[in-house]
Amino acid sequence: MRSPVPEYLQEILDACAGNDAGAVADYIPELAAADPEPFALAMCTPDGTVYSAGDAARRFTLQSLSKPFVYALALRDHGAERVEEAVDMEPSGDAFNEISLDPGTGRPENPMINIGAITTHTLVGDPDLPGPERAERIIAGLGEFAGRDLEVDDAVRSSELATSWRNQALANLVKANGILRGDPYEAVAGYTRQCAVLADVRDLAVMAMTLGSGGVNPLTGRQVVPEPVARQVLAVMTTCGMYDAAGDWLTTVGIPAKSGVSGGLLGVLPGQVGLGAYSPRLDAFGHSVRGVEAFERLSEDMGLHIMRAPAPSIDMIGRRSRTRDGRRLVALQGALTFPVAEMALRHFEAIEPGDDDVVVDFTLVPRMADVGVRMIGEGLERLSADGHDVILVDPHGRIPHAVTEEDYIARVVDEQAELRR
Amino acid sequence: MRSPVPEYLQEILDACAGNDAGAVADYIPELAAADPEPFALAMCTPDGTVYSAGDAARRFTLQSLSKPFVYALALRDHGAERVEEAVDMEPSGDAFNEISLDPGTGRPENPMINIGAITTHTLVGDPDLPGPERAERIIAGLGEFAGRDLEVDDAVRSSELATSWRNQALANLVKANGILRGDPYEAVAGYTRQCAVLADVRDLAVMAMTLGSGGVNPLTGRQVVPEPVARQVLAVMTTCGMYDAAGDWLTTVGIPAKSGVSGGLLGVLPGQVGLGAYSPRLDAFGHSVRGVEAFERLSEDMGLHIMRAPAPSIDMIGRRSRTRDGRRLVALQGALTFPVAEMALRHFEAIEPGDDDVVVDFTLVPRMADVGVRMIGEGLERLSADGHDVILVDPHGRIPHAVTEEDYIARVVDEQAELRR
Amino acid sequence: MRSPVPEYLQEILDACAGNDAGAVADYIPELAAADPEPFALAMCTPDGTVYSAGDAARRFTLQSLSKPFVYALALRDHGAERVEEAVDMEPSGDAFNEISLDPGTGRPENPMINIGAITTHTLVGDPDLPGPERAERIIAGLGEFAGRDLEVDDAVRSSELATSWRNQALANLVKANGILRGDPYEAVAGYTRQCAVLADVRDLAVMAMTLGSGGVNPLTGRQVVPEPVARQVLAVMTTCGMYDAAGDWLTTVGIPAKSGVSGGLLGVLPGQVGLGAYSPRLDAFGHSVRGVEAFERLSEDMGLHIMRAPAPSIDMIGRRSRTRDGRRLVALQGALTFPVAEMALRHFEAIEPGDDDVVVDFTLVPRMADVGVRMIGEGLERLSADGHDVILVDPHGRIPHAVTEEDYIARVVDEQAELRR
Amino acid sequence: MRSPVPEYLQEILDACAGNDAGAVADYIPELAAADPEPFALAMCTPDGTVYSAGDAARRFTLQSLSKPFVYALALRDHGAERVEEAVDMEPSGDAFNEISLDPGTGRPENPMINIGAITTHTLVGDPDLPGPERAERIIAGLGEFAGRDLEVDDAVRSSELATSWRNQALANLVKANGILRGDPYEAVAGYTRQCAVLADVRDLAVMAMTLGSGGVNPLTGRQVVPEPVARQVLAVMTTCGMYDAAGDWLTTVGIPAKSGVSGGLLGVLPGQVGLGAYSPRLDAFGHSVRGVEAFERLSEDMGLHIMRAPAPSIDMIGRRSRTRDGRRLVALQGALTFPVAEMALRHFEAIEPGDDDVVVDFTLVPRMADVGVRMIGEGLERLSADGHDVILVDPHGRIPHAVTEEDYIARVVDEQAELRR
Repeated sequence: MRSPVPEYLQEILDACAGNDAGAVADYIPELAAADPEPFALAMCTPDGTVYSAGDAARRFTLQSLSKPFVYALALRDHGAERVEEAVDMEPSGDAFNEISLDPGTGRPENPMINIGAITTHTLVGDPDLPGPERAERIIAGLGEFAGRDLEVDDAVRSSELATSWRNQALANLVKANGILRGDPYEAVAGYTRQCAVLADVRDLAVMAMTLGSGGVNPLTGRQVVPEPVARQVLAVMTTCGMYDAAGDWLTTVGIPAKSGVSGGLLGVLPGQVGLGAYSPRLDAFGHSVRGVEAFERLSEDMGLHIMRAPAPSIDMIGRRSRTRDGRRLVALQGALTFPVAEMALRHFEAIEPGDDDVVVDFTLVPRMADVGVRMIGEGLERLSADGHDVILVDPHGRIPHAVTEEDYIARVVDEQAELRR
Repeated sequence: MRSPVPEYLQEILDACAGNDAGAVADYIPELAAADPEPFALAMCTPDGTVYSAGDAARRFTLQSLSKPFVYALALRDHGAERVEEAVDMEPSGDAFNEISLDPGTGRPENPMINIGAITTHTLVGDPDLPGPERAERIIAGLGEFAGRDLEVDDAVRSSELATSWRNQALANLVKANGILRGDPYEAVAGYTRQCAVLADVRDLAVMAMTLGSGGVNPLTGRQVVPEPVARQVLAVMTTCGMYDAAGDWLTTVGIPAKSGVSGGLLGVLPGQVGLGAYSPRLDAFGHSVRGVEAFERLSEDMGLHIMRAPAPSIDMIGRRSRTRDGRRLVALQGALTFPVAEMALRHFEAIEPGDDDVVVDFTLVPRMADVGVRMIGEGLERLSADGHDVILVDPHGRIPHAVTEEDYIARVVDEQAELRR
Repeated sequence: MRSPVPEYLQEILDACAGNDAGAVADYIPELAAADPEPFALAMCTPDGTVYSAGDAARRFTLQSLSKPFVYALALRDHGAERVEEAVDMEPSGDAFNEISLDPGTGRPENPMINIGAITTHTLVGDPDLPGPERAERIIAGLGEFAGRDLEVDDAVRSSELATSWRNQALANLVKANGILRGDPYEAVAGYTRQCAVLADVRDLAVMAMTLGSGGVNPLTGRQVVPEPVARQVLAVMTTCGMYDAAGDWLTTVGIPAKSGVSGGLLGVLPGQVGLGAYSPRLDAFGHSVRGVEAFERLSEDMGLHIMRAPAPSIDMIGRRSRTRDGRRLVALQGALTFPVAEMALRHFEAIEPGDDDVVVDFTLVPRMADVGVRMIGEGLERLSADGHDVILVDPHGRIPHAVTEEDYIARVVDEQAELRR
Repeated sequence: MRSPVPEYLQEILDACAGNDAGAVADYIPELAAADPEPFALAMCTPDGTVYSAGDAARRFTLQSLSKPFVYALALRDHGAERVEEAVDMEPSGDAFNEISLDPGTGRPENPMINIGAITTHTLVGDPDLPGPERAERIIAGLGEFAGRDLEVDDAVRSSELATSWRNQALANLVKANGILRGDPYEAVAGYTRQCAVLADVRDLAVMAMTLGSGGVNPLTGRQVVPEPVARQVLAVMTTCGMYDAAGDWLTTVGIPAKSGVSGGLLGVLPGQVGLGAYSPRLDAFGHSVRGVEAFERLSEDMGLHIMRAPAPSIDMIGRRSRTRDGRRLVALQGALTFPVAEMALRHFEAIEPGDDDVVVDFTLVPRMADVGVRMIGEGLERLSADGHDVILVDPHGRIPHAVTEEDYIARVVDEQAELRR
């Protein structure tokens, strides 16, 4: 059969295509000349499958879409503490080009608005790096997120730089506050280059999914940034990514997202999906009109909302409580996060002290989170202290310490293998 | 064995207990006299298990902790559209008692700051309800979230009302803007009563988990508010709940949360856990010092962060591709959300047209989200159109339409039952 | 002959009467019903002559026109220091009903905006005065400025009080900041009574001239407030009286002024003229449209602009340097302010030491300012020290110390009297 | 004798010299190295007499002291309308280096804050003038105000330009708003040159007196800018010159003034005096600590306050009502402004119709303001219409039209001359 997923994207595209509200951004001469009609959507899954619909091959400049990724690169290069000294993480409630500075420290309010993004740009790589080299490093980094090398649109870059007075003002203000290292003009020149990097909607979806996969690019499998960096970037995108419409966006769409004045829009549901959209006509907030509508439909139709609570996990523990040979059995199901581990411990708690065997089966546990390992480990030790022999079953070979006899495991594994053959 | 979870809470409590920074709120005379020492933590799981540590029986007034729940009641009573006409959902970047009004409409910026919460108070129940009856309705609603009847501390209420000039100012401003119905003084009087409702940390944890379980109270099983209401409240708590520290909080703690000046703090990870803390000394933002530290440790130690991406779900489909009797098998694992359904469709897609049987096993699917049902349904129809006989296996009896012959299912179910017996 | 001055006023009235732009204030129900057509002008000279044109008998409520006078009463009752503790004197750059508070102290920015005027109201009379008595004291004080008893329009007062939410908000904010003594509601009730005092344009002109005559009412001759109080009120009116249009107003019109939403407008040129206007249609700043136009014409046509520099005073010293009997003569002309005294000293300086007589004639000096008396006194002592006999001539009898022989003065005075008989 | 005026200045200097509060401006490296001790005062009278005390020969850079004069040059070159399109005239209530822009138009709030002054700089001379030529034109213009050529301190200029990030930011913001013509960097470079012009306190006093003499330099007698320009500059200095302390300054000191971070301070009382002060230590507002104290003492001790009302001018008309030969006499005294003319008309009004002569004596009228000429002219015509023969006496030869017979005048003049011989 043919998967209906591309058709879903196409349906959403068709449903939004009639919407010709909004206008192409006009404050950058080269962007003002853009064709307003192209429309494309893309979706990337955690395992790197990319779907798309519409003008998916059409490239456009990243503009503000570059901001979360360059923020990630700065965090990777210098750590959260150093970056936070220069750029705060608070929603500003202001437009993207506002002078939103923390009144106490003079830092930009967050890295998603221009004044913060220009500052963030200068935090990638060695502080003494010449401007062009820093820009090269950033373009290479953006390519790591996309999983392929990206190019710069030099016509847009030079057009934007020639009329970059407001950004020059922002850079000079941060410089005057003692926050920006180096020359403000060079910072804007580099930032403008970063904004002029070309990508298509499939790139956006992959870049988004990389953030949503703990920093691992789902195409290349490469860890582009550490997991805590990806998490921090997503958190900041959630509160600050959609500028002064952030609250309404999180409520109605519920997909941490970022937009660019070229008409691009990307969104992430961690562990679930990366999304990209492109349509140049913008609304009053500077977001793609059709892109926003498409995201609203994706959220509504696909249930893609970060606050959508999974139902109580009645099945985190398998329903059988005895193995076929009559031993006590606790069969875990699902990623070993806190709630799963807590429930397992409650099952352990119900086991009276005694010298009978307890079999704990990890076969259906796809991921062993640290907290879960620690909690289960604690529980296993207590079961042992209660007199039980504990037999761990993990055909994936991930259990960090052997607490059972080799042959015994082997036997149980055989038994399990039979069950699931 | 004895579960180590209460000990975890106790350890966190012990680790934070030495922190005596901050000061008891002094702007309400009755609160200023509070004992600064009590400290308690509680945790509620999706299935209603409640753990606690410290002075868990100590009651305190809800104050701002009441805001998300009263917002939920207003949304339940009048719908998102009507409530949004009166109160916006944008982070204000200002302190809790600021005059944060949308410049265009004169609406409060969000329901988590006082000016928005007073307005929200008047949106519960019939517009013409006398003030005291509205307050009663709200106190009853707060009790539904807690799973038990809650009382008002009348000494705190009257002390707070007698010095409520700032709140009077806020109510009169909203009245002057044509947003508030009824008398501003009565609105503040009712709001002050709402703030004086008494609860303990276990109540907080249950109330939080109710929001995190799609509006269903995990103790009573009652649907207190519809799922979309719970989702909206969580989204607004995420961007606005921690006032001007919202961005930093989401990044470092990552638990949508709300605090009160009495020293209470609650947090929610949807589908995972509800949390409550109490310790009266406050930091500069008005948050409980020890409560914040405890939440930081819970986030760090327990991996409780909303942006923590589950690993790519390599195990969303069982690894066997054939049943024991040789038929094609697609065995789904996990809640049937978009990513799981998408992966299933990819497995369906790999099946060439033909007249052989395809078995689709829903045994390990705890929840059937609408979108997943639709997507899988579409896939099943396509498999049928390709010539296949499709056999669905669902021992939980949830499959909405019968596409297979009765006896055939029965046989397969028997087979599965044997596998898992 | 008949003075053309009333005709000048009438001409200005006629020139502006065709202007029907603007709209009657609608936020107070009783004002919204006002007849928009009446138009009147009045002018009061330093010696109490009052001219008027148009509907000069039409009375209207003072509204914000009361603010500078009540500020004057507060300064009179408690002194500049105490009043400044509660109300600052800085232009706010905001509209009249804005929440303009000094961020450091929580004081209202100035007494000309509502939040400052409500606070100022409570500073008249004893702090513990019951509200109604304070209002009576204020109404009596306003009458002292007008030179006659004034009444309250109770229909406007009660209509305004019933919809005074914004003012209630302002009063409660100042109360919350610890600035306002007493009950906020009572403050607004009293302030609303003050605003509802009735006057006509002739009253406005007299009240204005009282401020412009060092606090002395030109009709009654009574010192209503001390000179430094009148000076301070004029200074504050200059920077704050026309709200957010203060800078433009001072530049183009150059007459310290105050307007009221009922359509009244008053202005003062110290020592020169007091002006009043009335026409209910208001511009976007809340100023009477025709009133503003009339003031612009008065400024332009009559040269009434506070920054209009008198020409270099070539005639501050009479051109004769010898009396008829040959003695040295320095004949002063004009008020004995610093520039006149300085020039006199320069004439004294040109007199070589010697024992000849020097006659200093004060006949044409209408006013002896302290600084001038001191400076001239110093000069006279030095002339004496140089050996000269100094003969002072002052037929008005104001010279504070006799430095000359009685008969000699008498002789000179006779001589002068002859000259001027 | 020796004039005590220099001693007055010296006394004020001595009284303030012990005040070593404040600190030298440190944000410009070259200024930070300045000797904090020098202290000087100067005073210029309307006829060009200059007094000084202290380190009067010490030169310092004008910095913000240049702003009102360059504003005057822009008004002279392009008119009020064109300049107002680019720079508003409202007090900003903000510090000198704030981003105070009108929200509607994007114009700087006023020309006394940096953002307005940089914009104003570009409005001097032809719009297409190369930057250095514009700066030369401005330096020449400043020299016209001072009455001598002024030089630039190139060390200060280049030091300031090298750290001019904040000003660069301001210029770029105004450019981005479409307000600034030409290159923002060049504007700041030119503005920095303007700020680095050297002057001493005597220059300040002369420059100030030029504004206070209707634009006529009291030393050179040259009309540097037209009278309406001087008036507008003084009005704007009054509301905006002392930045966020403007209201307090006008109330307590009452001298329209401007300060510079180098420690200079100048003030003007129109028609009375120009003042200059210099002492480098600054208060929190950026004003010279000793300069401010000296101005306060000058205002208090010398009665130099713009709102000090002259006493009712009881002597605007001479007390004799008959000439010695028995004719009706109205002898005017003082500049022929509106109040004097109005009083004259009242005297005319008291004259019954008839054919007797009326003598109007202008001998003691130093200045004939347009409005006075018009009003008196009207009165004279009406006296004629009533049947009177009107005889004008003006030994200064300024009466524009001869209404009396030559010999008759001659006779009266003789008579007057005798009176005053």
